[in-house]
Amino acid sequence: MPENEFEWINKHTPKTYHHDGLVEGIGDDAAVYAYESNYDDILCVDMMIEEVHFKKQTMSPKDIGHKALAVNISDIAAMGGIPVYFMVSIALPKHWSDEELSEIYEGMNTLADLYDMDMIGGDTVSSPHELMISVTVHGRVEKGCHVVRRNAAPGDIVFLTNPTGRSAAGLHLLLDRGRWADYTKQEQKLLSYHQKPVPRVEEGRIISGFQLPASLNDISDGLASEANELAEASNISIELVKSQIPLAEELTLFSEDQYWDWIFYGGEDFELIGTIRETDWPVLQKKIQEKGLNIYQIGRVKEGPASVTLMDGEQEIKLEKQGYNHFKS
Amino acid sequence: MPENEFEWINKHTPKTYHHDGLVEGIGDDAAVYAYESNYDDILCVDMMIEEVHFKKQTMSPKDIGHKALAVNISDIAAMGGIPVYFMVSIALPKHWSDEELSEIYEGMNTLADLYDMDMIGGDTVSSPHELMISVTVHGRVEKGCHVVRRNAAPGDIVFLTNPTGRSAAGLHLLLDRGRWADYTKQEQKLLSYHQKPVPRVEEGRIISGFQLPASLNDISDGLASEANELAEASNISIELVKSQIPLAEELTLFSEDQYWDWIFYGGEDFELIGTIRETDWPVLQKKIQEKGLNIYQIGRVKEGPASVTLMDGEQEIKLEKQGYNHFKS
Repeated sequence: MPENEFEWINKHTPKTYHHDGLVEGIGDDAAVYAYESNYDDILCVDMMIEEVHFKKQTMSPKDIGHKALAVNISDIAAMGGIPVYFMVSIALPKHWSDEELSEIYEGMNTLADLYDMDMIGGDTVSSPHELMISVTVHGRVEKGCHVVRRNAAPGDIVFLTNPTGRSAAGLHLLLDRGRWADYTKQEQKLLSYHQKPVPRVEEGRIISGFQLPASLNDISDGLASEANELAEASNISIELVKSQIPLAEELTLFSEDQYWDWIFYGGEDFELIGTIRETDWPVLQKKIQEKGLNIYQIGRVKEGPASVTLMDGEQEIKLEKQGYNHFKS
Repeated sequence: MPENEFEWINKHTPKTYHHDGLVEGIGDDAAVYAYESNYDDILCVDMMIEEVHFKKQTMSPKDIGHKALAVNISDIAAMGGIPVYFMVSIALPKHWSDEELSEIYEGMNTLADLYDMDMIGGDTVSSPHELMISVTVHGRVEKGCHVVRRNAAPGDIVFLTNPTGRSAAGLHLLLDRGRWADYTKQEQKLLSYHQKPVPRVEEGRIISGFQLPASLNDISDGLASEANELAEASNISIELVKSQIPLAEELTLFSEDQYWDWIFYGGEDFELIGTIRETDWPVLQKKIQEKGLNIYQIGRVKEGPASVTLMDGEQEIKLEKQGYNHFKS
C-alpha cells in the first residue's frame, strides 16, 4: 500500500478530463456527472482476482490494468454502447509494490485514452493475500437503441466478430512457459489475445446504430456458453456450422482437438456473438467491412427450446453451457 | 461458490424494481437506465475485505451486506444525493457457504428497500482466501445542488449530525468478546453502530435542498481525519470546541481517554460533518430538528492554512489527519 494515500491519490488523479458532462471527478465523496437526455445510461461491473483470473506469471501489472478495464468495456460494447466513465476498487497485498500498482493504473489509463474514458473515482484498500480489482464502467447509448440477448428469432443469421480460442491458447502457453520466456511472433500474438483483449466497441456501435432487431453478447465464458445464453434469453435454438466458424491461423500451431476445444470453450475472447434478421445481414456485413472490421456468419437461429447445436457435416453435436475455468483442467 | 451460477443469479434477481427509469436490470451484459434531465448523476464505489474491514467474529453475513452497501449510500448522502441503483462484486472463498452468501445479499436488500434502491447487476467470482465485496452505488441530485468539501469559508459554523466514536467502541467490544457473547443493552447499541451503520441520507438531502453555500463530508476515517479533508479541500482552518462535541451516553462505559480517542480517531461512524454560513445555520438547525433528526454545532471555520485545532478550554490541540486502522493498534 502506498504509505501516503493522499499523495498517492493526487498523483493518480487525472489533470484533465475528456468529458464536459463531468461535474465532480476524483476528490470528493463521489463523482457527479450530467447527461443529455437523449441517451440511456449503462452500468456494469467486473472483478478480477489474482490466482483465479491471473497470476504474476501470466500477466504483467499493465496487462492486469488493461484487462480489468477491457472486460467491462466489452460489456458496454455488447449493449451497443459507448464507454464513458470508470471507477476502480483495488485490494492490494503486501507482495505487490507501489510501482506495480502504478503500472496497473498505467495499463488502465492507456486503454481508457483510446476510448476517451475518464477515471472518476475508486477505492484502494489492503488485502491479506491476493490482488483483487473490481472495475465499474458507466456508458451510454442513444435512447432505446441498446442491444440485448433476448431478441434472437428463428431464421436469424448468427454472427461472430472474429475468431475465438486465441486467448485460451495464449493462456496455455503462459501457464506452460511463463510470460518471461522467448516466444515466436505467432505465439506472441496468442499471448496478446489473452493479456490485452480488444473490446469490440466499434462493432457494437454499428449494430446498435442499425436500430433493427438484433441480439448481442460478448464472449467472456466461451463461444458455446455465450451462444447458450443467447438461446436461453431468446428461447430459441442456435445451429452453428463448423465449416463457417473462423479459424485463427495461429491456432494451427496446436492439434485440431486442442484448438476446437479452445474455440468453443476457451473463454475470454471478448468477441461479440449476435443474431440479426436475414434481410438485414448483407447491410450489417457491408457496414462492418467498410470500417475494415470483421464479421462472420457462423450459423442460424431455429425454433426453440433453448439449445446450441454444432453441425459438423452430417453430424449434430450438442454444445453444452460449459463455463470457463481459468486454472483448472 | 454456488454450484449453478445461473440458478443462483435467477434466485437473487429481484422480481420487481422500484424505479421506472430502469430499462434493463440484471440479466444482460450491463444494466441500462434513463433519467430526467433535471438531475445530475452520482457514482461511488467502496470495497470491504475480510480480515481488513471485518472478521467473522465481528460481523454476521447480514451485517457485512448491510455495511458494504451503507458505506456507499453514505458517500451519496455526503453529496446531498438520493441513492438509486447498486451493483455488487463479491469474491467468495470456499470457507463461506452459499447460505452465508445469501445472508450477505439479504443484508444488502433489507437496507436497499429502506431507500427504494434497486440492485441492477454484479459479478460473483471465487477467492482463494478472503471474502471481498465491492459495491457501486448510482445516485442522483437536483441539477447543480450537490454539496462538496471545498465550500467551507471563514466564519462558517462547523456541524456534525450525531455523536461519533460509537462504531469504534463497538468494534473494541467485538474484538474483545466476539459477536456471540452476551452484551448489555448499552453495549448492544455500540455493536450496532459498528455492524449496521445508518447513512445520513435525510440530513444530506436537507442540506442540498438548501441550495446555499455549504460543505459536507461523511465520517469514514474518523472525525479528525474528515475535518482535515474539509480544511484541505477548502483551504481554511477548522477550530473544534471540545465542550460542543456531542458525547454519546454509551461511551461513558469506558475511560475518558479511551472515548475521546474514539470520538476523534475511531472512524466508521458515517455521520456527516459540514459547514454552513453563520446566517443560514439557524434555518438548517430548525429544518433538521423538525424532522426529528440531530445536528450539532461543533466549531467554527477560520482563515487557512488548512489545519484542524481542538480548543479544550484555553488549550489548543492540533488534530492530525490520522487514518483509521481497523485491526491495528
